[in-house]
Amino acid sequence: MTSEPTEPRQELRNPPARTVFFVSDGTGITAETFGHSVLTQFEMRFRQIRLPFIDTVDKAHAAARKINEAAATDGNKPIIFSTLVQSELSSVIRQCSGLHMDLFQTFVAPLELELGLKSTHTIGRSHNIVDSEEYRNRIEAINFSLAHDDGQSHKNLAEADVILVGVSRSGKTPTSLYLAMQYGIKAANYPLIPDDFERGRLPSALYDYKPKIFGLTITPERLTEIRNERRAGSKYASIENCRYEVNEAESMMKREGIRWLSSTTKSIEEISTTILQEIKPNRREY
Amino acid sequence: MTSEPTEPRQELRNPPARTVFFVSDGTGITAETFGHSVLTQFEMRFRQIRLPFIDTVDKAHAAARKINEAAATDGNKPIIFSTLVQSELSSVIRQCSGLHMDLFQTFVAPLELELGLKSTHTIGRSHNIVDSEEYRNRIEAINFSLAHDDGQSHKNLAEADVILVGVSRSGKTPTSLYLAMQYGIKAANYPLIPDDFERGRLPSALYDYKPKIFGLTITPERLTEIRNERRAGSKYASIENCRYEVNEAESMMKREGIRWLSSTTKSIEEISTTILQEIKPNRREY
Repeated sequence: MTSEPTEPRQELRNPPARTVFFVSDGTGITAETFGHSVLTQFEMRFRQIRLPFIDTVDKAHAAARKINEAAATDGNKPIIFSTLVQSELSSVIRQCSGLHMDLFQTFVAPLELELGLKSTHTIGRSHNIVDSEEYRNRIEAINFSLAHDDGQSHKNLAEADVILVGVSRSGKTPTSLYLAMQYGIKAANYPLIPDDFERGRLPSALYDYKPKIFGLTITPERLTEIRNERRAGSKYASIENCRYEVNEAESMMKREGIRWLSSTTKSIEEISTTILQEIKPNRREY
Repeated sequence: MTSEPTEPRQELRNPPARTVFFVSDGTGITAETFGHSVLTQFEMRFRQIRLPFIDTVDKAHAAARKINEAAATDGNKPIIFSTLVQSELSSVIRQCSGLHMDLFQTFVAPLELELGLKSTHTIGRSHNIVDSEEYRNRIEAINFSLAHDDGQSHKNLAEADVILVGVSRSGKTPTSLYLAMQYGIKAANYPLIPDDFERGRLPSALYDYKPKIFGLTITPERLTEIRNERRAGSKYASIENCRYEVNEAESMMKREGIRWLSSTTKSIEEISTTILQEIKPNRREY
């Protein structure tokens, strides 16, 4: 499976070590999420190609041709992460030259055996997603989180699952949106601002909802960096002011008994997972 | 592994068919995303429990106890989707009573063989995520998409990767945010409003950026439903007005040669995947 290209090709100047394909009858997001996790364990570059919506035999053959072309060009086996439910499609891909990571075929058979139940092999089941309660909850949660971003609205806070508080630019907004989008969690967020520190109290609208408040903090050093990207040289972004605000915010959260974590070295996924554990350990949306 | 609870327990009134665990040294989002895809192929109820941040042997033993308790209580084997990088932790979990879907152990070994490379077995690699360029791009894209939601800002449209257009409530905002959050795509969005239809032209700010415009449409029947949830009985939500707006928007998109799709039966994941294929087939962020 090696080949000698007759013309110099641009990608050869910086040759990809390996080509990786994500093949799916749906969006391919599952194959890609999983594939990324596995590939980060190898210190090499991968050229990654997504082949979504492969839901007919013809499309599977077209995908197979692309994979075989990559094998010929690269002179090695492509890595193929696939989530094809129908075995008819999966077997077309399996005939390609490649290392096959066939996620469904690998795990569905033992599950069928253990559960004593045949899988439905539902192709395009995702087409029903938009009618599902889970999907509607997610969209509703996104709208809620947007309407309750940055303390914009005090209305319907009773409906919130979580209320995030913290100084400006501590990561509240992206975390709120991630909680909504991934888990259907209605997350409002409220900035803690110098007015609150002078009064020495949380915004009064929040006192009724203390059990669902969760705080985010951040190191002053990281905060001044982030704020300087937005408003370079301002008092708002200065290290002195950042130290003052972070210190006041942390003191207030301690005084009020609010759980909090530092977003400095945590991704929105890690922050969200921690918040879910703390605030809603039993909420399962599926 | 059966047991007779001595007291009636609440969950037995509506007994869970099976308990499923998602066990991870990180957030568990990979295990969960994959597990959900597999489980939707079985028509039964699952009780789902996430055990994230299992990154020490002690925590692995605590997780193992929970799994064994569920096995004893349910009287059957729990299903365990695990993404534990360290084999030391993975082997603790493997001793549990359960059906093991050990995602990394299953796929990493054949990859090591094919690549001729040892995996780094990087525990807690996600702790470096926030410093990665990919992560910064995602956060920047979320901020961009928020600042350019609903035609709020004409500034920096040159920086946008995608500009979504469509009538109010056709799905532009959640799609923009998903593109930003999942793929680091800077997605602005512009509503098409009756003023635009009267003028018979796109908002003029958009003409410089036609190659990156993508349209969303929706059936008038679905649109009137969604708008009535917000403003019941309004002219804005009426079926006549929805028919008028959708018809005008589709005519305008055809006239201007804008690619578009209907969001009526598509999830934000499906819409986003389609847009990526159409607008940025070669953009890979990893």
